[in-house]
Amino acid sequence: MKFADIEVLDANDPLAKKRELFSLDENTIYLDGNSLGALPKAVKSRINDVVEQQWGRDLIKSWNQHNWIDLPQTVGEKIAPLIGAGPGQVICCDSISVNLFKVLCSALQLNSERSVVLSTEDNFPTDLYMVQGLSDLLSTQRCQLRTVSEEEIASSLDESVAVLMLTQVNFRTGSLLDMQHLTSLAHEKGIIVVWDLAHSAGALPVELDKCNADFAVGCGYKYLNGGPGSPAFLYVAKRHQSTRQPLNGWMGHSQPFTFNPDYQAAESIHQYLVGTPSILAMSAMDAALDVWNDVDMGQVRAKSIELADLFMQLVDERPTLKSLKLCSTRKGNDRGSQLAYSHDNAYAICQALIEKGVIADFRAPNILRLGFTPLYTSYKDIWNAVGYLSEVIESEEFLKPQYNMKAKVT
Amino acid sequence: MKFADIEVLDANDPLAKKRELFSLDENTIYLDGNSLGALPKAVKSRINDVVEQQWGRDLIKSWNQHNWIDLPQTVGEKIAPLIGAGPGQVICCDSISVNLFKVLCSALQLNSERSVVLSTEDNFPTDLYMVQGLSDLLSTQRCQLRTVSEEEIASSLDESVAVLMLTQVNFRTGSLLDMQHLTSLAHEKGIIVVWDLAHSAGALPVELDKCNADFAVGCGYKYLNGGPGSPAFLYVAKRHQSTRQPLNGWMGHSQPFTFNPDYQAAESIHQYLVGTPSILAMSAMDAALDVWNDVDMGQVRAKSIELADLFMQLVDERPTLKSLKLCSTRKGNDRGSQLAYSHDNAYAICQALIEKGVIADFRAPNILRLGFTPLYTSYKDIWNAVGYLSEVIESEEFLKPQYNMKAKVT
Repeated sequence: MKFADIEVLDANDPLAKKRELFSLDENTIYLDGNSLGALPKAVKSRINDVVEQQWGRDLIKSWNQHNWIDLPQTVGEKIAPLIGAGPGQVICCDSISVNLFKVLCSALQLNSERSVVLSTEDNFPTDLYMVQGLSDLLSTQRCQLRTVSEEEIASSLDESVAVLMLTQVNFRTGSLLDMQHLTSLAHEKGIIVVWDLAHSAGALPVELDKCNADFAVGCGYKYLNGGPGSPAFLYVAKRHQSTRQPLNGWMGHSQPFTFNPDYQAAESIHQYLVGTPSILAMSAMDAALDVWNDVDMGQVRAKSIELADLFMQLVDERPTLKSLKLCSTRKGNDRGSQLAYSHDNAYAICQALIEKGVIADFRAPNILRLGFTPLYTSYKDIWNAVGYLSEVIESEEFLKPQYNMKAKVT
Repeated sequence: MKFADIEVLDANDPLAKKRELFSLDENTIYLDGNSLGALPKAVKSRINDVVEQQWGRDLIKSWNQHNWIDLPQTVGEKIAPLIGAGPGQVICCDSISVNLFKVLCSALQLNSERSVVLSTEDNFPTDLYMVQGLSDLLSTQRCQLRTVSEEEIASSLDESVAVLMLTQVNFRTGSLLDMQHLTSLAHEKGIIVVWDLAHSAGALPVELDKCNADFAVGCGYKYLNGGPGSPAFLYVAKRHQSTRQPLNGWMGHSQPFTFNPDYQAAESIHQYLVGTPSILAMSAMDAALDVWNDVDMGQVRAKSIELADLFMQLVDERPTLKSLKLCSTRKGNDRGSQLAYSHDNAYAICQALIEKGVIADFRAPNILRLGFTPLYTSYKDIWNAVGYLSEVIESEEFLKPQYNMKAKVT
């Protein structure tokens, strides 16, 4: 591969112009949008307005005047088309963990004769933790976690399973599960399916309605660029919306401002709201989502696969990079929008790369993880990233002590 | 009372200078800081920095570089002295509703032979709703709500009660419960006490440690000025911190970044963290709390009582305001930092007042609620507010149709 080929790829990229919508230093090669999405420029002016005018000047009146009260729904409806959900099924609130708790409780209720929540052993830990916590609270007679490998999912779907809880794209390897197939297999056994879209919403076309999905949760701060720790979202298929969830906060009440002492759940996705949402965080998310207005998710997916394929090809072409072992599949259709390489010095290599302006991340125990965000990553970024990676590894500069000091957040 | 007396009061007010720390239009008389605190100027620059530099430029590195990961604790420790809590017992996270769920589960666990959660029938509804939800989830054998009037609390404390859940200051009337006395009475019967400080944190001196409180939750967006829907906080006395709560999110794990599939709770207040916190919301809260740096809470309390007393006195002096019926006690020591008046047209009067620049709020069914925030409310504000209130009522302009159209948020 020659640099001239790379220039052609960028010149023909229908998404290339989208990078202008982001506030991203031109010397930064950001391959960590799967951990924290870059800042959309529109967020800056929105947040200024929310702080100075809405909060500072209009104060409490803003709940009506600037429709603060509707933000969870407004934002949810902006996310819906990105995950293949028809209207009235997605709402933005709380964190993924809290949202998982809500939908797991609903899902278990729909299958109250069974107790097993089946998941994968290398699911993102918070998903497994939430089931463990619920199991401790309810007893294993009502909820117990069973984990299997990704390969064993299909064969483990039997009548003991109440809920199948899967993350569509594995947070380490990026392996992509077949939502349509697994949902359908699970339904044949009467199993309710909860999908975690943390690494798929905004990364690839998701078709919740088409797959007949039951519940889903997802994250605002990765591919949706909603800002650090931005509010999460949840999806509940229309047919399940009368099933209750136990976090009866006042925002989920059918008439919160009558201040009635008895809880009466809203007859809609609103019953999944709990407490008062952060308007700053929710507004940032709302503004961030506008970058998707005219985006063709098919183009995003095609470019995502090409960026990763290019990365692998460039690594393969350099004999000095043989010490990196690919942990992701080479098949683009079976992968999310990231690659994982293992290396004994993955942490230090990641730190040394950051020093050169290439931001990737490390995932314990030994994974260098590279995320590809087609809206603001160019083919040239990939070319340069692999160049820097070679420099770091060939020179062994990653052995320097400063790259081997563990930080709180790795 | 004459205006000259008012001018003397303002001239001698040791807190008068604090108003400069807030971005508040000089023509606005803001008597709703008990619903949404005014904007501290320091928040503006902090949020700009967090958005443009921390998120926009430093991206994922900010979790370490700007100590994002420590914010829940940093903010918790800033709140702690305002509520009489020693270090390591307060953390900032989630909403009051979600935090109540966590501490209720812990409290019930500490008293697992009992099931009754005793509260007041006019507690803020979300508190009652959360118990109802937990009761539905766990069955009434493990959790059931019993409500009584404020007067009946003491006589209702018996050995069937597992948890006493009280809001220190009533959201409608502002009546203040005696934390020391009720906690002590409850402990005599082996009852665990959960305090909701929504209307007391930042409004009056709170002494959690001194009262030997067990658990507390509170709100960031009222007297603490953390911004609309800002993160809430919770307090867990050191002696209870090994008791578990069921929302096992990864942020509550003892080592979140080892990504171990088994949950191991942090051995500290950190186990009450759940998902990834909103850094925008948390940073706003952090900056907002600096207005308290050199504030004497005794002075805040004294001025709060004086402002409310002055309001009542000025209302009493005007015969035309007889249609307003005081629902709060006249005894300053038994009151939080607000007054409630009932009136058949309370909603319309509130709207007409807003039109004149006096922002109070309405609480169903017929309450005009006025909050007093000593850091940015002057005696002159009170004088003028009562003046406008007289105008609105004497002229009957509140009868105009535009003041009688109900908004989504009342």
